[in-house]
Amino acid sequence: MEKLEMLYEGKAKKVFKTDDDKKYIVEYKDDATAFNGVKKGTIVGKGVINNKMSAQLFTLLEKENIPTHFERLLSDREMLVKAVKILPLEVIVRNVAAGSLSKRLGLKEGTELKSTVLEFSYKNDELGDPLVNDYHIKAMELATDEQLNIIKDYAFKINDILIKFFREKKMKLIDFKLEFGLYDGKVILADEISPDTCRLWDVETNEKLDKDRFRRDLGNVEEAYEEVLSRLSK
Amino acid sequence: MEKLEMLYEGKAKKVFKTDDDKKYIVEYKDDATAFNGVKKGTIVGKGVINNKMSAQLFTLLEKENIPTHFERLLSDREMLVKAVKILPLEVIVRNVAAGSLSKRLGLKEGTELKSTVLEFSYKNDELGDPLVNDYHIKAMELATDEQLNIIKDYAFKINDILIKFFREKKMKLIDFKLEFGLYDGKVILADEISPDTCRLWDVETNEKLDKDRFRRDLGNVEEAYEEVLSRLSK
Ligand SMILES: Nc1ncnc2c1ncn2[C@@H]1O[C@H](COP(=O)(O)OP(=O)(O)O)[C@@H](O)[C@H]1O
Ligand SMILES: Nc1ncnc2c1ncn2[C@@H]1O[C@H](COP(=O)(O)OP(=O)(O)O)[C@@H](O)[C@H]1O
Ligand SMILES: [Mg+2]
Ligand SMILES: [Mg+2]
Repeated sequence: MEKLEMLYEGKAKKVFKTDDDKKYIVEYKDDATAFNGVKKGTIVGKGVINNKMSAQLFTLLEKENIPTHFERLLSDREMLVKAVKILPLEVIVRNVAAGSLSKRLGLKEGTELKSTVLEFSYKNDELGDPLVNDYHIKAMELATDEQLNIIKDYAFKINDILIKFFREKKMKLIDFKLEFGLYDGKVILADEISPDTCRLWDVETNEKLDKDRFRRDLGNVEEAYEEVLSRLSK
Repeated sequence: MEKLEMLYEGKAKKVFKTDDDKKYIVEYKDDATAFNGVKKGTIVGKGVINNKMSAQLFTLLEKENIPTHFERLLSDREMLVKAVKILPLEVIVRNVAAGSLSKRLGLKEGTELKSTVLEFSYKNDELGDPLVNDYHIKAMELATDEQLNIIKDYAFKINDILIKFFREKKMKLIDFKLEFGLYDGKVILADEISPDTCRLWDVETNEKLDKDRFRRDLGNVEEAYEEVLSRLSK
């Protein structure tokens, strides 16, 4: 598999073409951003951790019949993935109130939600990823009704699988963000699943083991990422 | 029907108890506010116009089998209504992009939407009426699934009825806001339907005939409200 020109450099990853036009190489960086790029920094070793963790979780999900873009690990920071057309939606799944949900709806951080909350935001940095509902998605043609139903179904299933998995590793899955893409016309899970895109709290102490340590200057940022990876490999 | 003590003074109306504990009197004021109360003013004659216009539209909707709180006009500024428990949701129906939708989603004002957009916001002044989706409504118990389905059904039907009605009066219905309440356990339409809660544009010139004239300091505010009422009585 040959690594060809870079197609896109995002905030956390670089995407490269390969000699197979149905495959891309994703390279995970140590760059960290928050608040739509307003806060910037580096989390040393994050790229390696997020690459390994995403690989492990995509493998788990594939076993549970969720189609993902993951093909195989290529190196510490690189994975081979299926080249998809990303749907311009961030799919957020929430079990416990935190972050923007707490702030917007006045729910104290840590409040258990009475039912799982799905949110969609329109992936558009200039607009600040605004929240959209099913009607906006339809009117703006961000996804078809059929694609949206599949995404919802996968999102709930992934939540069930990941809650259980993290629970065994002594972590609570508070919320997480997914991105889906189209491959051969079918919806598959893409992007990453990592402490950058999940809120994970220690099951006993509620200590935050995710990017909130960076966002909120809580210290021990690298240590938290390493702790998550170490718990996952147990 | 005796007018008893005031129960609640809102931004645009006062609500009074009556000697029938299943009925309230709503009194329409000339007070105008915008941007969640940040901008304040008076639109002389607005209370009279909104009272008459709401009465006419509630009567039209009742005829079309939409249950409303409207009982009868009592005076220029007062109507008798069924006393409901208001559901804490603002239900927004949009046919054309304008206002907050244009701003949030980067759609030029005046863009015809490919399909009708319904939005729900959590009626909470302190939080600035944040947008919520079906999952937030369920998790926060703002309405039951059954109530929500009824509201959606009514909202689309009301839109069809009102589009047609305003079209005959040479106005385009761009968007509008509804509030629903529970009466004997059933969902009925409450609050008001007026140039305060609808965006109405002249069908030929696209001249704004609604509260945007006040919000955006476009001048001829009173004249626009009077123009709407005069077209309705033709
Ligand atoms: N399998 C894939 N095929 C094509 N693009 C992908 C795939 N997986 C992820 N992407 C995209 O790669 C980009 C790089 O990731 P990232 O650095 O996280 O970007 P961003 O700054 O947009 O968050 C993102 O736009 C993401 O949607
Ligand atoms: N039939 C009804 N029964 C009880 N309350 C009602 C009824 N119709 C409207 N209301 C409520 O009356 C209040 C007064 O209206 P308004 O001045 O528009 O208030 P606000 O400042 O909340 O917009 C609103 O809270 C509205 O929800
Ligand atoms: Mg990203
Ligand atoms: Mg009001």
